[in-house]
Amino acid sequence: MRYIRSTGEGGKTTKTLGVIGGLGPLATACFIEMAVKMTDARTDSEHIPMIIYNWPGIPDRTGYILGKSSENPFIEMARIGKTLSGQGADYIAIPCVTAYFFYEQLCKEVDVPIIDMIGETARHLRDNGVRRAGLMATDGTVTGGFLRKGLEQQGIEVVQPSAGGQKLLMDIIYKGVKANMPFAMDDFNAVKKELLDAGAEVIILGCTELSVIHRDHDIGPGFLDAMEVLAQKSVLLCGGRLKKEFLNLIT
Amino acid sequence: MRYIRSTGEGGKTTKTLGVIGGLGPLATACFIEMAVKMTDARTDSEHIPMIIYNWPGIPDRTGYILGKSSENPFIEMARIGKTLSGQGADYIAIPCVTAYFFYEQLCKEVDVPIIDMIGETARHLRDNGVRRAGLMATDGTVTGGFLRKGLEQQGIEVVQPSAGGQKLLMDIIYKGVKANMPFAMDDFNAVKKELLDAGAEVIILGCTELSVIHRDHDIGPGFLDAMEVLAQKSVLLCGGRLKKEFLNLIT
Repeated sequence: MRYIRSTGEGGKTTKTLGVIGGLGPLATACFIEMAVKMTDARTDSEHIPMIIYNWPGIPDRTGYILGKSSENPFIEMARIGKTLSGQGADYIAIPCVTAYFFYEQLCKEVDVPIIDMIGETARHLRDNGVRRAGLMATDGTVTGGFLRKGLEQQGIEVVQPSAGGQKLLMDIIYKGVKANMPFAMDDFNAVKKELLDAGAEVIILGCTELSVIHRDHDIGPGFLDAMEVLAQKSVLLCGGRLKKEFLNLIT
Repeated sequence: MRYIRSTGEGGKTTKTLGVIGGLGPLATACFIEMAVKMTDARTDSEHIPMIIYNWPGIPDRTGYILGKSSENPFIEMARIGKTLSGQGADYIAIPCVTAYFFYEQLCKEVDVPIIDMIGETARHLRDNGVRRAGLMATDGTVTGGFLRKGLEQQGIEVVQPSAGGQKLLMDIIYKGVKANMPFAMDDFNAVKKELLDAGAEVIILGCTELSVIHRDHDIGPGFLDAMEVLAQKSVLLCGGRLKKEFLNLIT
């Protein structure tokens, strides 16, 4: 059941992006803004159409992956994916790295292509000659192992923070950004230094809450923001014109 | 057909906000962020659920109201409103002031309450003792007359910019924010000065593109951002907890 179709400039059919969002909700708002700002558009109608479920009630991904919660976020994500398909989405994006733990399972359940944020991030690094990447992500992503696997498949070695560094990141993500509370940028910079000292050529911002920090603070160069990779791919697949400065996303 | 229901903390049923968005798309991203940041939440799940149609292909509102275009944006807005209703939205918000030209017509067509941004803005001013408000808005809103009428119904006198000031505003909105291009803050400040000189006690940011400027620039005190009123009301109606600092929105 496809309710609405949109046609772009000159009658060219654009594709509709479905978004399984709310994981968290601030990251979703930031993702939409990213896709809009990456698009080379002079009028509203040159932007890609999106249907966004900003659904913050989806159970916490890290909690489930670590076995701390029995509430499986997959069920709700699959349900929203199917709804988006029914509403006419041509592609689906999920602005939450940890959610990609369920990627293969979701692809089987939803009949619309889900953009592979992990694979795209790994290919972006490989295409830019990166051999050793630092990883800033949630415990769920680290334990889940899927991001590491995706990078290793492209021949990229992964550098992870120490246990102490990982704890700092989790506090920044959950007690800072998700809780809408202040946090110490010194903690962020300490983890950054740790990863650079361990030989990381580029640091992956591998959690969409860290993308919010990237937007709002000066974190310096040497990063690849996984959510930017997702936004870039979303614009391109849906027929938007990408601004040239967003071709290479490594800062 | 109601696909998905969300329950908040302690099983309390929260309401779902439907958003007719993309008018423009940057304003919609900004609106979602506003609602998130106004909510007193410590975890993702304490935020209100939203279904957002970010549909930038909806024909330009001002173009139609001024008779410059025959493409009627109402048709697509009504269609999205009905779709949102079918998807389980309990309330609908439209983060575009000019679109409220079609408000009464939309209310007749869509069986879910549409939040009255104009009426709420007028009541917010009245409740704070404002008698004379400056208006920054599109030509469509000025010509349409619905915002002026809404304010006058609450006994508030409206101060509008000169023809030259209005032209500056339209360029800021269409050639600046909507076109994703730089614009002169001096022009914005010139219109602000004009309205204050004419006796405005508060200036209404009566176009959601101006709300984007409000977020990204220091425009000083003395404003009421209509999109903030819409976000505040959306959070409250959908059962979110509002942060105290967002009770009075006049800066």
